[in-house]
Amino acid sequence: MATLADIGVSATINILTAFAFLLAFAILRIQPINDRIYFPKWYISGGRTSSRSNTGNFVGKFVNLNFRTYLTFLNWMPQALRMSETEIINHAGLDSAAFLRIYTLGLKIFVPVTVVALLVLIPVNVSSGTLFNLKKELVVSDIDKLSISNVPPKSIRFFVHIALEYLVTIWVCFLLYKEYNNVSTMRLQFFVSQRRRVEQFTVVVRNVHHTHGHSVSDSVDNFFQTNHPNHYIGHQAVYNANKFARLVRKRNGLQNWLDYYQLKSERHPDKKPTVKLGFWGLWGRKVDAVEYYRRIITELDKMMILERQKIIKDPKCILPVAFLSFNSRWGASVCAQTQQSKNPTLWLTDWAPEPRDVYWQNLAIPFVSLSIRKLIISSLVFALVFFYMIPIALVQSLANLEGLEKVVPFLRPVIELQFIKSFLQGFLPGLALKLFLYVLPSILMIMSKIEGHIALSTLDRKTSAKYYYFMLVNVFLGSIVTGTAFEQLHAFLHQSPTEIPRTIGVSIPMKATFFMTYIMVDGWAGIASEILRLKEMIIYHLKNMFIVKTERDREKAMDPGSVDYKETIPSLQLYFLLGIVYAVVSPVLLPFILIFFAFAYLVYRHQIINVYNQQYESAAAFWPHVHGRIIASLIISQLLLLGLLSTKEAAKSTPLLVILPILTYAFHKYCQSRFEPAFRQYPLEEAMAKDLLEKTTEPELNIKAYLADAYLHPIFQSFEIEEHELIEVRVDKQQTQVTSPSSNDTTSPSSSHYHHHLPSPPPSPPHDDYPGFFHHVPHYGYQYQLEP
Amino acid sequence: MATLADIGVSATINILTAFAFLLAFAILRIQPINDRIYFPKWYISGGRTSSRSNTGNFVGKFVNLNFRTYLTFLNWMPQALRMSETEIINHAGLDSAAFLRIYTLGLKIFVPVTVVALLVLIPVNVSSGTLFNLKKELVVSDIDKLSISNVPPKSIRFFVHIALEYLVTIWVCFLLYKEYNNVSTMRLQFFVSQRRRVEQFTVVVRNVHHTHGHSVSDSVDNFFQTNHPNHYIGHQAVYNANKFARLVRKRNGLQNWLDYYQLKSERHPDKKPTVKLGFWGLWGRKVDAVEYYRRIITELDKMMILERQKIIKDPKCILPVAFLSFNSRWGASVCAQTQQSKNPTLWLTDWAPEPRDVYWQNLAIPFVSLSIRKLIISSLVFALVFFYMIPIALVQSLANLEGLEKVVPFLRPVIELQFIKSFLQGFLPGLALKLFLYVLPSILMIMSKIEGHIALSTLDRKTSAKYYYFMLVNVFLGSIVTGTAFEQLHAFLHQSPTEIPRTIGVSIPMKATFFMTYIMVDGWAGIASEILRLKEMIIYHLKNMFIVKTERDREKAMDPGSVDYKETIPSLQLYFLLGIVYAVVSPVLLPFILIFFAFAYLVYRHQIINVYNQQYESAAAFWPHVHGRIIASLIISQLLLLGLLSTKEAAKSTPLLVILPILTYAFHKYCQSRFEPAFRQYPLEEAMAKDLLEKTTEPELNIKAYLADAYLHPIFQSFEIEEHELIEVRVDKQQTQVTSPSSNDTTSPSSSHYHHHLPSPPPSPPHDDYPGFFHHVPHYGYQYQLEP
Repeated sequence: MATLADIGVSATINILTAFAFLLAFAILRIQPINDRIYFPKWYISGGRTSSRSNTGNFVGKFVNLNFRTYLTFLNWMPQALRMSETEIINHAGLDSAAFLRIYTLGLKIFVPVTVVALLVLIPVNVSSGTLFNLKKELVVSDIDKLSISNVPPKSIRFFVHIALEYLVTIWVCFLLYKEYNNVSTMRLQFFVSQRRRVEQFTVVVRNVHHTHGHSVSDSVDNFFQTNHPNHYIGHQAVYNANKFARLVRKRNGLQNWLDYYQLKSERHPDKKPTVKLGFWGLWGRKVDAVEYYRRIITELDKMMILERQKIIKDPKCILPVAFLSFNSRWGASVCAQTQQSKNPTLWLTDWAPEPRDVYWQNLAIPFVSLSIRKLIISSLVFALVFFYMIPIALVQSLANLEGLEKVVPFLRPVIELQFIKSFLQGFLPGLALKLFLYVLPSILMIMSKIEGHIALSTLDRKTSAKYYYFMLVNVFLGSIVTGTAFEQLHAFLHQSPTEIPRTIGVSIPMKATFFMTYIMVDGWAGIASEILRLKEMIIYHLKNMFIVKTERDREKAMDPGSVDYKETIPSLQLYFLLGIVYAVVSPVLLPFILIFFAFAYLVYRHQIINVYNQQYESAAAFWPHVHGRIIASLIISQLLLLGLLSTKEAAKSTPLLVILPILTYAFHKYCQSRFEPAFRQYPLEEAMAKDLLEKTTEPELNIKAYLADAYLHPIFQSFEIEEHELIEVRVDKQQTQVTSPSSNDTTSPSSSHYHHHLPSPPPSPPHDDYPGFFHHVPHYGYQYQLEP
Repeated sequence: MATLADIGVSATINILTAFAFLLAFAILRIQPINDRIYFPKWYISGGRTSSRSNTGNFVGKFVNLNFRTYLTFLNWMPQALRMSETEIINHAGLDSAAFLRIYTLGLKIFVPVTVVALLVLIPVNVSSGTLFNLKKELVVSDIDKLSISNVPPKSIRFFVHIALEYLVTIWVCFLLYKEYNNVSTMRLQFFVSQRRRVEQFTVVVRNVHHTHGHSVSDSVDNFFQTNHPNHYIGHQAVYNANKFARLVRKRNGLQNWLDYYQLKSERHPDKKPTVKLGFWGLWGRKVDAVEYYRRIITELDKMMILERQKIIKDPKCILPVAFLSFNSRWGASVCAQTQQSKNPTLWLTDWAPEPRDVYWQNLAIPFVSLSIRKLIISSLVFALVFFYMIPIALVQSLANLEGLEKVVPFLRPVIELQFIKSFLQGFLPGLALKLFLYVLPSILMIMSKIEGHIALSTLDRKTSAKYYYFMLVNVFLGSIVTGTAFEQLHAFLHQSPTEIPRTIGVSIPMKATFFMTYIMVDGWAGIASEILRLKEMIIYHLKNMFIVKTERDREKAMDPGSVDYKETIPSLQLYFLLGIVYAVVSPVLLPFILIFFAFAYLVYRHQIINVYNQQYESAAAFWPHVHGRIIASLIISQLLLLGLLSTKEAAKSTPLLVILPILTYAFHKYCQSRFEPAFRQYPLEEAMAKDLLEKTTEPELNIKAYLADAYLHPIFQSFEIEEHELIEVRVDKQQTQVTSPSSNDTTSPSSSHYHHHLPSPPPSPPHDDYPGFFHHVPHYGYQYQLEP
């Protein structure tokens, strides 16, 4: 068992490592050559251009020669704190601001709790001194002397712990309520203060019911013109463009090769690059590489044009899904919130996610399939959480040396070498597990995608929920109760419900040192490596060396990344759980959590301001989950304390604790009904107010033209750069402007069919000197500009 | 343990009793004097009048002298079956028709299950013969030899039981799906085919947010004119009339006394009745009774007029609740389904219940209070279900003889008498329990009322849910696992989750005989006494003898009653549970259930056609509960079979059963999303279709006048009989007709304030010779007429 000294050593090592990372970061970030790694956000928002470093000489473009700046190398911290929350919302969106609020919530919760717990509990626990009286032979950690383990059974002192649990619960609930209130207000405020957004006027309808004779588009128009006559103005069909998307991917790959060979031939104009035509380029006739790729790309372009025409002309390619456009936020809000058809599995309406948030592949899943998918994925997640050790143990048993020798007998002489043997023996068994844990978020993401959610933000949320369950069972419970999750499940099924909190509760104080180490290694070091962006830096410099030709390519090579909600939020929730559970049991853990929250807050604030570029804006839609998980942590901590105290025979004091989980749950229910609707629905009051405001400020607005191409499948939007198409689109918009000056004439079905005109063939293939297919996708009008 | 012969004797007795009841009913029902007891529904719907019996002589008015009718005394059964379902819907409403469907569902489920189970399982069980091989001394019931207990451990025969469980599950799920589909279609059909109903245009809004300077009415008008400008046409305020209602109750009581003394003085004109003015009429000055009551009723009338004026004029008496009127079903449907305000605890809109379904007292409960009430009542129900034996045991221990003698020592000589002693000893301990069980539904109803539901139908549903939990724990589990519910709770908390189904599962086969008796006594006898209406008959004849003067009074004395959903539906659900659980375990129980369902179906069909007069129409809103409880029964039966088989060491076969509850639950989830919305919301498609139809058939309809007085508090409606008021109301309707020929001018706030005009003072006091305050309440236009 670890002593205080051990923990001290471990902490020193971790702090030094973190400090080294920070130092490296501080030096690297002020080198102009790394500017695009550590400040990509400013390039995207237009705050910086590449012609920034004007030191004049050649070296100054790559290395910072202004040595005074090295003295103030830690000034990124105050810089990160300087930006106000409103500015962050404008600069990086509400998601980022709400994400930072999780950290401030953590600080608000744990600063007072740490102070009170350390000041009150440590003296109470230490002075009880049961463990001091035990024989010296029994190895008892110093940490344990500071924990509840040190209090003798039947002690009256347990009332102090119970009182503190009450205090913690009340304090956490108070802050949670305040924070939920703040975030939901911020969300509505965000909707109000934002300029016009297409998703406010758009509703996605799934499971369109179309009879055999009619097309999907006609059915949609008929249905909504009948049932929302004054508000519906048209719809945008969704095409089944999976084949086309495959072609686009293929073309991109070929384009990359073309670029590569073009660069090669430019650098060495004397030596023409060639390729072999055979299998995987290994054999066959040699041809000129640049010409070859140019030719097959041209062929592919022709195929793509044909495919595109087919998609747009063939009614079978239109999926039974559509994005409905409404002439007012009120109309869209009504349609999204109401039940349309008497068969509630048809005509399912919901808010449309913003266009860049749509996950197009999942749009066409029918209702029955969704139910089945949900069931299957739930079972799979359950199996994954509880039985994931089984396949890994299998792989591990295969991957031991004897197994390996049997499978690949010709490798035996190599394996038998002492050096390689010991390396493999130490390395192989862990490899499978490490690999699994590394790919776990991706596996969970794939599961979420199979479940059929239609927005990237929803996918992130669902994946993060699954990841949280995994961590709760395998990291938290798995560390406390030794044995695999499967063994635990077996044990729990055969224990009584009152026995489980006892089993876990008893082990909790002993595991404090483990979790301290965990927080340092996983938390502190993780955050420090987050800010250094080592992987991104290496990739960027490699790309810069080999691929980048133009300023545009450099922009392409820049990878700002984004907050990885599906991994960070579950980890955060785990830290909340640890902090709340250990607050009363073993408060020495709290400073570690506190340092994590403070440090992570600084780092993420810096990253959000300078680095990350969010893929979508869900307006803090993840907050109900954060709230719910913290409530769950509270209840878990109460039950575990109850179990722990029941083993301490503190029969007098435990009944006091029984009421607490019930009250906490009731509080949760209240919060849910009070705040959650703000995260699910758009109140009519707000919609109407915004509509009226807009009507007075912009009476001339043509909402139909504004929405015309908002929800076009992204692979079609790449064609918009074509000049004659752009004109066509503009003409189309003009027409709709002429034919529908107001929304009253929408009953003529022809005017709502604008979706047929838009991505119209034939386009010419993209320019040769520019490979971008996706990079011309317009910015959807969601740029956030930092106010000065 | 009961043998087959015992059960046979018990069955014979019960069948004879039931037959006696039926015979009594058959004779009593054809006596003209009992016509209003056994056919009140026809008097209400206008099918019969009192001048019906034209046999001429005096005796013929009371006793049926046509002896031929005695020979066909059982013809009520085919008569009851003759009416088609559509006719029943028209005659007695959809609730009644759907209620009967529960019985047909029971028959559809259990007829094939009984046949298959008896044919397959009985041979399998009997031929196994473990119990035959046991020593003769061990008393084993014959019933047990027919049950699963007779199959030896590790037998391969358990696969038959598992296969049958699968069959039962599939069959029940299939029928449930079909039935849910039918009922939800019937519900929508009912809405479509019905003529115009006020609740289709009305939405109730609770938690109106009004600022200090404005009245509730102004706030409501402002808010909804802004947010539903094209649909909102006005609202009806809800007054806090509790004090007025108290006065009405007091006046009714006094009126009864006046009637009594008037009758007395008419019969004996020579002897004037007098009353004493002192405490409880025991002493004081004697005055003429008739004059005295007339005087104080006049005084009371004056007070009531003042109070009424006060209520209507004082804005403080307007509660923060209102019934909103819309000009179309679409508008109302939208408002009911959407979130109005950004604070989701304010402006809560929901469908208005139909006027006679409104529970007025609960309309004004604020949101926070509702949450707290829900929490408290949930805890109370939990306590009631699990700890109800504690106070009863307390009362019982007090109520034993020694306790009684201590409390009232002067009664000792009486108690010590042998006869009284033995009577008390046998009687007292049971009395408390019997009393408690008798008042239990009322207690649960009071709890539901405290929870704050605003419709009588919701109250009935919530009460029935509570009653079901009570029966599940105390009748079902309580009979299987001996001991009080509290002891069970204690045991279950200290057993592992896998142990519980084993404990219960093992005891199930042994309790088959108990439940057979239970079904006969509670089910068969209960149904037979239901049709006899003994209590109602006695009360009616007593009233007829002492109170009835006019034909109107006779109508008052007639008490048709209604289906008591809150007691019958939970009992039905218990029978479903018993049938499904025992189908595989001990199929001899099934015929008893089958007889119950068939008999009860006949009886309730007769009662619904001839007797009951429903208080409200909820359009089968209880069906999701029925569906859910049967699914729960399935899952319970699967888990118990799993537990039972695990004790039989049938390790090979049990894994087959584990998947079943998961699939059943998934089926339930699917049904929920597929059908439940039809019971919660009114789809826009339907609303729009009905609106359009109405616009073409009745273009001249003034919807505002139609809705004007629909949701007036019932105590005010009693005043409408006053002639000049009626005129006033008509004038008012005329005005609204003139001022709002169409719905477009609703933006003028004055026109939507019609609720202020309606119950306008001063009214003259009601006629002296007619006491009715409530009896002139108009029928709300919901009469169902039987088609020929």
